[in-house]
Amino acid sequence: MLVTGSIGIDTVKTPYGVSKDCLGGSAVYFSMAASFFTPVRFLGAIGADCPFDLKKIFKGRGVDLRGLEVRHKSKTFRWAGSYKGAMNQATTEAVEFNILAEDPPRVPEGYKDSKFVFLANTAPILQIRLLDQLDEPKFIAADTMNCWIKNHIKDLKRLLKRIDCLIINEDEARMLACEDNLIRAGERILKMSPKVAVMKKGESGSVMCSRNGDKFVLPAYPATVVKDPTGAGDSFAGGFMGYLASQNRTDFTTLKKAVGYGTVVASFTISDFSLKGLTKITKRHIDSRLIELRKLVKF
Amino acid sequence: MLVTGSIGIDTVKTPYGVSKDCLGGSAVYFSMAASFFTPVRFLGAIGADCPFDLKKIFKGRGVDLRGLEVRHKSKTFRWAGSYKGAMNQATTEAVEFNILAEDPPRVPEGYKDSKFVFLANTAPILQIRLLDQLDEPKFIAADTMNCWIKNHIKDLKRLLKRIDCLIINEDEARMLACEDNLIRAGERILKMSPKVAVMKKGESGSVMCSRNGDKFVLPAYPATVVKDPTGAGDSFAGGFMGYLASQNRTDFTTLKKAVGYGTVVASFTISDFSLKGLTKITKRHIDSRLIELRKLVKF
Repeated sequence: MLVTGSIGIDTVKTPYGVSKDCLGGSAVYFSMAASFFTPVRFLGAIGADCPFDLKKIFKGRGVDLRGLEVRHKSKTFRWAGSYKGAMNQATTEAVEFNILAEDPPRVPEGYKDSKFVFLANTAPILQIRLLDQLDEPKFIAADTMNCWIKNHIKDLKRLLKRIDCLIINEDEARMLACEDNLIRAGERILKMSPKVAVMKKGESGSVMCSRNGDKFVLPAYPATVVKDPTGAGDSFAGGFMGYLASQNRTDFTTLKKAVGYGTVVASFTISDFSLKGLTKITKRHIDSRLIELRKLVKF
Repeated sequence: MLVTGSIGIDTVKTPYGVSKDCLGGSAVYFSMAASFFTPVRFLGAIGADCPFDLKKIFKGRGVDLRGLEVRHKSKTFRWAGSYKGAMNQATTEAVEFNILAEDPPRVPEGYKDSKFVFLANTAPILQIRLLDQLDEPKFIAADTMNCWIKNHIKDLKRLLKRIDCLIINEDEARMLACEDNLIRAGERILKMSPKVAVMKKGESGSVMCSRNGDKFVLPAYPATVVKDPTGAGDSFAGGFMGYLASQNRTDFTTLKKAVGYGTVVASFTISDFSLKGLTKITKRHIDSRLIELRKLVKF
């Protein structure tokens, strides 16, 4: 599986403390989450200022870093944000796009036959250009956000015709569909062409709709330890896509279980700052929490 | 089962239209919802101005109206509210407490042996006084809201020691527990003495915690037709309590199925204005949607 997205130097403040200049970014959270399920091909760029040794961080996790570009004249993406109260929403305190404003990294030859692809949130035109470099993916999922919906809707609609699955926050789904009812918003998004829409509701779980009318609703895992929600959405996507790739299937039964895995992996991410919630667990923890989640919704 | 709560003349404005001077009130929604499952003893008061014939409205539904007091010198409770966008929150445009500010109705002799009791939201001191009039209920549930938590917390804590189950909105649960994490908030509420806490999350479903550590999370039914959310919470409580009373059981397996029924009944309530969503269905519709909901969360 191939993922492309950001690598970030994050500073995060939550009621539980401050984590200064820690490793973050969509591709990083996604890869760590997906690596529990399947080998991952990582595509992203950092500047010379990046203090993290990604080779060491991903060591033994089956994450292929041939697609990691280090640009010596560039600066790494930085994000500073804070969360308050129930921590449902991040407030961006500062952002430096730096390398994200440059040309995206090129897809290495050895990545071009990737079958499962995740395009983390970035300009839809860049997401399209990346797809242009691939041979014949089997299942492409993408994320997007409000600024692309507002200002680059034409590119985004072109992208939607090229992907199989949109994984998106609920408010952005409503904005994209111009529809307040989330289920109808999902149905409208499917008319823009993806086969599957997964709408993330943060601590309230997620909703998945498929073009042939299947629906799935799942609450979040009822976590009592939530220290830092950063990366929850990308970890969700990582668990979701990782499981699909590991099964090499995308039927609705497999998609539902993938949402379950995404939900569970995200619940570990938020239990600690940066990647600590994910690096301290094994696949066994994930599997046992999946069983627990299944029990928690059964009646 | 006994319910006490309000009977209201509601004016509701939503993106789907305006419903002027329609029947509403917590006891009304609750009774209509519970009546699909069990006979209901209704306790409430109206003024001479009340334009609704409750006998006719509840005809054939097994709702005992001996506890309906008509006070000829009083005026009925009135509420006007509006909903916008995703309709997650009502804005109160006008409220006239009228009869709700007077003495509550007295419990008729024939109601005193009620086994299942629901105390809809009102001043905790009035909820306590009502309980004082009952013989020996088996399972008492109550609702409350922010103003009682803020201004009458002592009475509310006394009430909590007398009830088995608190059914409460998520934000109010957080406020009552002084805890932002909803699951931990539920656990703290259980330390205030009820055996079960059900936290309602509107279009995101509900969470139930029990004192012996059992948990249950259920999304809302993914409704595509939501015309008027008024009464959803009371209908949820009605379906929940109605099912429990019908089974005469309150073990966790039965409680979980009761949350399922509450969820489903509420999904019908919000599909139309006032009571129309409930009066046009039969128990068969409810049962078939329960099966559907069970399928929607299964993975």
